[in-house]
Amino acid sequence: MSLTDVIEGTKTAVDADPRNAAVSFSVANALKPGTATRVDVRVRDHTLTVDEPAALGGTDTSANPVEYALAALGSCQVITYQFWAAKLGVPLDGVKVTVDGDIDLHGFFGFSESTRPGFGDVRVSVELSGPAGAEVYEDLKRQVDEHCPVLDLFRNPTPVKTSLT
Amino acid sequence: MSLTDVIEGTKTAVDADPRNAAVSFSVANALKPGTATRVDVRVRDHTLTVDEPAALGGTDTSANPVEYALAALGSCQVITYQFWAAKLGVPLDGVKVTVDGDIDLHGFFGFSESTRPGFGDVRVSVELSGPAGAEVYEDLKRQVDEHCPVLDLFRNPTPVKTSLT
Repeated sequence: MSLTDVIEGTKTAVDADPRNAAVSFSVANALKPGTATRVDVRVRDHTLTVDEPAALGGTDTSANPVEYALAALGSCQVITYQFWAAKLGVPLDGVKVTVDGDIDLHGFFGFSESTRPGFGDVRVSVELSGPAGAEVYEDLKRQVDEHCPVLDLFRNPTPVKTSLT
Repeated sequence: MSLTDVIEGTKTAVDADPRNAAVSFSVANALKPGTATRVDVRVRDHTLTVDEPAALGGTDTSANPVEYALAALGSCQVITYQFWAAKLGVPLDGVKVTVDGDIDLHGFFGFSESTRPGFGDVRVSVELSGPAGAEVYEDLKRQVDEHCPVLDLFRNPTPVKTSLT
């Protein structure tokens, strides 16, 4: 199914009942027994592994959580470019996105309570290839940045409730 | 190296020069040629795959970007529990974290400009096992929630600059 078909099919379904736009995602994370920082993740039928590099006490079997967050942002940018290029009829031959983020570890370790534990700054560099003019891709970028779910997550507060069970 | 050693070693390094606490992470994302939504991700020596399920135009080879974001949050909670249990001397035998998030697709598809594209609500359910009393784990949870980098990313705005190159 082409992305244009997905967009039109979703529009039809959502016009019929707006509740069809409500989707939920669920992820199960568990510390691998006997390890300090290895996390096994289940997402539907998929499994992922998260770990820390040796400098952060792990065995470096995969990327760490903050790198996963940057991968979420970069891949969401790529896919949102694909969807919005299809929606707007913009020809697009390739999309590459590099994401860089800075953290001051004073926050995570509690060495300074005035330092936030998360990213202090994030930079997203997008490389598009295709036959359209520069201003067409600048317009596409504006639409993507307004509609990219994970960019919204980074830039704006999201309500999160945590509970011990 | 135990997590306690990592915490003490980092403290010594950061006390010697606060700039030692500044760390940067980088992730490269590229659309796999010939696909609609498959993204190949490189993080240091690691590779990850991101895709969409068929209902969102993909081939479902892995989790999608918003599921990656939830995995980042869940795994970051697990590892922050491990570090802060070590720091506070709290015995902890196991950590499991389930993360659920809701999205209204009106936002991503641009069907409604008043709907945010990202998560409207996220719920984190933590299951700890260990011999300490309930109030000890409640205190641990408060410290974890104050110092978890990806929880901070979800709850608070992060400055992100995007650029076309």
